[in-house]
Amino acid sequence: MNQRLTKLSTWLKKENIDVAFITSPDNVFYLTGFLSEPHERLLGLAVFQEEEPFLVCPAMEVNDAKNVGWNNEIIGYSDTDKPWDFVESRIKARNINVRKFAIEKENLNVERYEELISRFEGAVFSSAEAILHELRLVKDESEMKLLRKACELADFAVEVGVNAIAEGKSEFDIIAEIEYEVKKKGVSGMSFDTMVLTGKNAASPHGTPGQTKIKKGDLVLFDLGVIYEGYCSDITRTVAYGDITAEQEKIYNTVLQAEETAVQAVKPGVRAMDLDKIARDIIHNAGYGDYFPHRLGHGLGISVHEYPSMTATNELQLKPGMVFTIEPGIYVPEVAGVRIEDDVLVTENGVEVLTKFPKNLQVIN
Amino acid sequence: MNQRLTKLSTWLKKENIDVAFITSPDNVFYLTGFLSEPHERLLGLAVFQEEEPFLVCPAMEVNDAKNVGWNNEIIGYSDTDKPWDFVESRIKARNINVRKFAIEKENLNVERYEELISRFEGAVFSSAEAILHELRLVKDESEMKLLRKACELADFAVEVGVNAIAEGKSEFDIIAEIEYEVKKKGVSGMSFDTMVLTGKNAASPHGTPGQTKIKKGDLVLFDLGVIYEGYCSDITRTVAYGDITAEQEKIYNTVLQAEETAVQAVKPGVRAMDLDKIARDIIHNAGYGDYFPHRLGHGLGISVHEYPSMTATNELQLKPGMVFTIEPGIYVPEVAGVRIEDDVLVTENGVEVLTKFPKNLQVIN
Repeated sequence: MNQRLTKLSTWLKKENIDVAFITSPDNVFYLTGFLSEPHERLLGLAVFQEEEPFLVCPAMEVNDAKNVGWNNEIIGYSDTDKPWDFVESRIKARNINVRKFAIEKENLNVERYEELISRFEGAVFSSAEAILHELRLVKDESEMKLLRKACELADFAVEVGVNAIAEGKSEFDIIAEIEYEVKKKGVSGMSFDTMVLTGKNAASPHGTPGQTKIKKGDLVLFDLGVIYEGYCSDITRTVAYGDITAEQEKIYNTVLQAEETAVQAVKPGVRAMDLDKIARDIIHNAGYGDYFPHRLGHGLGISVHEYPSMTATNELQLKPGMVFTIEPGIYVPEVAGVRIEDDVLVTENGVEVLTKFPKNLQVIN
Repeated sequence: MNQRLTKLSTWLKKENIDVAFITSPDNVFYLTGFLSEPHERLLGLAVFQEEEPFLVCPAMEVNDAKNVGWNNEIIGYSDTDKPWDFVESRIKARNINVRKFAIEKENLNVERYEELISRFEGAVFSSAEAILHELRLVKDESEMKLLRKACELADFAVEVGVNAIAEGKSEFDIIAEIEYEVKKKGVSGMSFDTMVLTGKNAASPHGTPGQTKIKKGDLVLFDLGVIYEGYCSDITRTVAYGDITAEQEKIYNTVLQAEETAVQAVKPGVRAMDLDKIARDIIHNAGYGDYFPHRLGHGLGISVHEYPSMTATNELQLKPGMVFTIEPGIYVPEVAGVRIEDDVLVTENGVEVLTKFPKNLQVIN
C-alpha cells in the first residue's frame, strides 16, 4: 500500500472505523493514482484497517487502473451487473464485522447511501472528509511539481488571451484562441469553463461569456485554469483595452492593493479569516465594501475548489504546504468589474506565488 | 408557475408529498430556466402542492435568476451565511406540516440529506427522480430545437476533426482545432472532454487522448458533443487514415451494420433491451461478441448521460419524444477500435436521426 492509503488505514484504527468507502473520483485519484471520470457509473475504493483494499470500477477501466500501478484487488462490472452486490460481497469476504463506515458525505448521494444502509444493517456512518481534507490540505513535492506546471500553463493562457484582444473580437473568439493554444501544449482540459468578460459583463461577479464584442474603454477580465496531470490551476487577471476612466483605474488599484497585501500576509499561523479581512478592509476603506460579495478564495489541488474555504469566518490556521487562491474583486454595475487572483503556496516562512502573470494595470492599445 | 412546475405540484398532490427540494443544476434549469453551476455552493428549488415555490442560490447569482424570468421568491446567501437556515425558515414559513419530502436521491449528498433530516424531524424522504425522469424523458418542441442545433454543431465538429487529420499531428492538436472552430461559433462548452483517439488508443473503449501522433494505417475515433443553450449532443465517428487492413474494415462494417440496424428498429413500443440485442447480436454473430463491453446507449438532453440507460436488461418501452444515443463499438486490442454513435429522436411512427455526419467508411489520404 502507498503512504496515503497507509495513513487512511492508521486513521481508521484510531477512530475504530471498520471500512472507508471512497467514491469521489478526486479522492480515488489521490489515494490510488487512478484518474477516472465514471459519470453516473459507480467508482469505489474500500480501505480497511488491516485487510487488503479493493477498487470497484466499470469493467472497461480495469486495465487503466492496473496500468497506473493498482496491484490490489480490482472488480470490474458491466453495464448489466449490479456493482453493489460486488461491494457487499467483497467487504463481507474480509471477514470483519462492519459496524462503522467512513463515507464521503460531501460526495456520496442518497441512493448509494441507502444501498450501504440496506446491505450493512445496523452500521453507522461517519464522515471520511475529516481525514481526507487533512491529508489533501498539505501538498507534497510530487503534487507541487504538477501544480507549478498547471500554474505556468495558466500564466501562458492569460498571455494568449491578452495578446488576442482586438476591436471587433467577441468574448467567445478570445476563449477559442486561448483554449486552442493551451490544448496544443497538451493540456487535457480546463479547470472550469474559461471566462473572458468584457465591459458590463465583467461588472457581474458571475458573468457568462457570450458574443459581446470588445470595444475601446472596456476592462477585460480573464478567469481560467488548466488541469495538468490531474491538478488544477485558477488565475484571474483584468486588463484595460484602451483608455479607461479615473474611477475604473481607482477600482483596479484598490483590488490590486487588496490582493497584494493579502498575498504578502500569508505565512504559517495566520488564519484564513485574517487574510479575508486584510483584503476586505482595504476594499471597504476605499468605499467599495458593498461591491466585494464573495469570499477571498478557496483551496486548490486535484479539485479546482477544495477544502478549505477562505472566508471571513474560517478560523483555520495556515500551514506550510497549503495551496489556495486569493481573489478579491470589486463589481460596480455599469462602472467596472475587476478581479485579480493568484494561486499561492504557504512556505515555512511565508508565501510562494505560483501564478506569475504581471498584475500592474496593463493598457492594451 | 410554468407548466413543468405545475406538473411537479400535481404529482406532489397525487403522491401526498409536501415539498420537493430540487438540488441538481440540471433539474433546476429544467424547472426554472435558470442555468447555474454553483460548484460546492448550495442551489435549491423548493416546490409545494399549493404554496409559492422558492429558489435559494448564491447572492451573486440572484440577478441572473431574475433575468431569465424567475418571478417567485428568491433567497440569495453570501459565503458566510448558512443557507440551510434560510431553507428551513422559508419552508416552515409556508405554514405546512412537512411530513414527506421528495429529494433527488441520485444527486443530493449525505451531508445535505443530514441537514434536512435534522431540521425536519420525523419527515420521510422519497425519490423525486420518479417524476423528474418521466418529465424529462419526453422532449417538447422547445427542447428539440436546441437539441437539433446541438447535434448540427456536433456534425460540424466532426467535420473539422476529419479535415484536420494529417501526418504528424497529435490527438491533442486535432482536439484543439475542433474546439477552436466550435467555440468560434459561440458554443459555451463541450458536453464532455473531446476524445480523438488513434490506432492503439482507439482500441480501448475508454481511451484517453494524448500526444500520440496520427500515422497512416490508423483508425481515428472522434467522440464529442457540444452544449447549446443548456442542451447536449454526443456523436462518435471513426475514419481510416490511409489504407487499413481487411480485418479493420470488417470490424468497421460490422459496427456500422449493428448501429444502422438498431437505429432503423427505433419506434414507439420497442423496448430499450430490444435495441441493445439487435446491435449485440450482429456483433456477436460476426465473432466480436467479447469486444463490445458496454451498453448500447443512454438518454440525452440537459445532461449528456441521462435517464434512461439503454442496456440489455432495460424493459422500458420507447415513446415519441424520447432522445437517446445508439453507440455500439468493437475494441480489439492491437487490432482496431471502432465506435459509431448517433443521437436519435423517437417519432410517432419511427425515428429521426439527429446527427447526420456520414457513416460509410471514409478513407482519408
